[in-house]
Amino acid sequence: MKNVVTIGGGTGSFVLLSGLKNYPVHLSAIVSMADDGGSTGVLRDELGVLPPGDIRQCLVALSDSSEKMRELMNYRFERGTLKGHNFGNLLLSALEKINKGFLKGLEEASQILNVKGEVIPVTDSGVNLYMELKNSKVLKGEHQINSNFEIEKRGIKKFYLNPKAKANKKAIQRIKEADMVIIGPGNLYCSILPNFLVEGISEAVCKSKAIVVFNCSLVNKKGHTEKFTLDDYVDVMNKYLGKEKINFITFNSLKPSKRLIKKYQGRREFLIPFIREARTKRSYKIILTPLLNTEAPKFSKADALAEHRAFIRHDPDKLAKTLMFLLELKENKNFIKAII
Amino acid sequence: MKNVVTIGGGTGSFVLLSGLKNYPVHLSAIVSMADDGGSTGVLRDELGVLPPGDIRQCLVALSDSSEKMRELMNYRFERGTLKGHNFGNLLLSALEKINKGFLKGLEEASQILNVKGEVIPVTDSGVNLYMELKNSKVLKGEHQINSNFEIEKRGIKKFYLNPKAKANKKAIQRIKEADMVIIGPGNLYCSILPNFLVEGISEAVCKSKAIVVFNCSLVNKKGHTEKFTLDDYVDVMNKYLGKEKINFITFNSLKPSKRLIKKYQGRREFLIPFIREARTKRSYKIILTPLLNTEAPKFSKADALAEHRAFIRHDPDKLAKTLMFLLELKENKNFIKAII
Repeated sequence: MKNVVTIGGGTGSFVLLSGLKNYPVHLSAIVSMADDGGSTGVLRDELGVLPPGDIRQCLVALSDSSEKMRELMNYRFERGTLKGHNFGNLLLSALEKINKGFLKGLEEASQILNVKGEVIPVTDSGVNLYMELKNSKVLKGEHQINSNFEIEKRGIKKFYLNPKAKANKKAIQRIKEADMVIIGPGNLYCSILPNFLVEGISEAVCKSKAIVVFNCSLVNKKGHTEKFTLDDYVDVMNKYLGKEKINFITFNSLKPSKRLIKKYQGRREFLIPFIREARTKRSYKIILTPLLNTEAPKFSKADALAEHRAFIRHDPDKLAKTLMFLLELKENKNFIKAII
Repeated sequence: MKNVVTIGGGTGSFVLLSGLKNYPVHLSAIVSMADDGGSTGVLRDELGVLPPGDIRQCLVALSDSSEKMRELMNYRFERGTLKGHNFGNLLLSALEKINKGFLKGLEEASQILNVKGEVIPVTDSGVNLYMELKNSKVLKGEHQINSNFEIEKRGIKKFYLNPKAKANKKAIQRIKEADMVIIGPGNLYCSILPNFLVEGISEAVCKSKAIVVFNCSLVNKKGHTEKFTLDDYVDVMNKYLGKEKINFITFNSLKPSKRLIKKYQGRREFLIPFIREARTKRSYKIILTPLLNTEAPKFSKADALAEHRAFIRHDPDKLAKTLMFLLELKENKNFIKAII
């Protein structure tokens, strides 16, 4: 079975893994440990546990247990002192405490949820993310970075972890053995890049013989990547990788409805432009293919954040099909002809 | 398979069911819904859910899932806003919310935990327990009753639920079909009797052809049953049943260590006296047998209340063996001779 490693966090990883889990590959989901907002932030502060939120989403995506169990994991308490807490986060925190360790707790949660493949925290410790802007303002924590909308305007002087964090050995091992490394989709500064600030991850990807794919987002993020083109995403990724290592970028070719585009524009979130002749020479190939989810979104009534969640979003099956196609292509160079 | 119904709540039911579940009988655990203290109280107040605490203990006792899963269910958060909450209580509350109903949520929890037999709330609604003393003081809620130590001294004028509660139909059905109804062990006013204040329960027990056994506590409770003899327990039970319906009472014949007895006496908790010639005529038989747990108690380190828990306690296996013996006796009157 081919080894596929995903690197990311948040809803992007959830969507990606939900699609990939239906294919006969060995999946290892490497997940950011930088989350410090919402329920996760409270649990980190109050209980001193590692951030469960991103891990939880990946576990649910890869879980082969009942729909009810998955619903339970994502259930958010709506009132009282428990308000905003995700049941799955509480499960992970309790298991960490009982087992005196996050990794051991995660192992048990994976058993309880009958997880296909494995979910691997990028590092064994909780990570404190910092971003210093060129105007010397320092943003502390993923939560502050996520809600600051002047990052692009001011420019980034330094993006780092303090204290420094070393990569989980298993993460390094899985990247080493990988046939394919998939980065994103997801929030660039808050879900994707925090993984590459961990010592050892970029180096491992660069050394790996895997093909490396970047799943480009569908819309840019206000004040973060507002003016990004597809090429800019690859450039940033290669910069953090330390080498022109991205082999493929998947890019959606299907336009959302005008109504949705307008809604997003009102929030300063724009579709990412694709300019075919932007560069004469590229170190990567672009896979232009319909990746948009055209189904009406179904949110659980228990999901209090439903209205904040993305409506322009990747289709898990389309994304997975495209990636599996690239994996096939790695074996058989003649498998497809028309790649831009 | 014989049908065995237990009626109670709290740690008493946990001990009883832990022993009974190893025998080939169909178990139905009817559980009080009057709990309103601690984690359960907060969840009732803040989320408007039904009291999960007593139900949780019975689920764990009957669960055939891993030891780790059982430990998880009983895990208590130790810090922050989650402090004091039992993980299993949060599970039951989340499932009640997701399923829009306690009974449906309980059904799912039973599946998740692979429960042998069934756990049945005595009524479908949360119950508010009141006790009016003869000095007209009104104690509101199980929690207030539990921590008041003048009940015996003042005397009880009225013990009731407000609003009145009707029995869960399934509870009535199971009592009707029962070969044996087991009451207690447990806290008399806070775990046992609240079940019999629910409309229909006493009536069902009285109509039933089952043998009815009362498991007498090992020590009296300070200010509640401090001066009770074994006969007093049966009298109170028969009073609430409305008929001399108790057929057997199990009573421990093994003395705890002097050190433990002294420790308990310091808290005004005394061993229940057994006076053989107290009555010339009895409507019940006393089973005098070693029921004391002589093993050193093992508490989970995660159990913050460990030091408050009982050290003079029933042995689950001895208790279950005795009860199964009585079930056999029902079929075969000659099975044993020497019963006092």
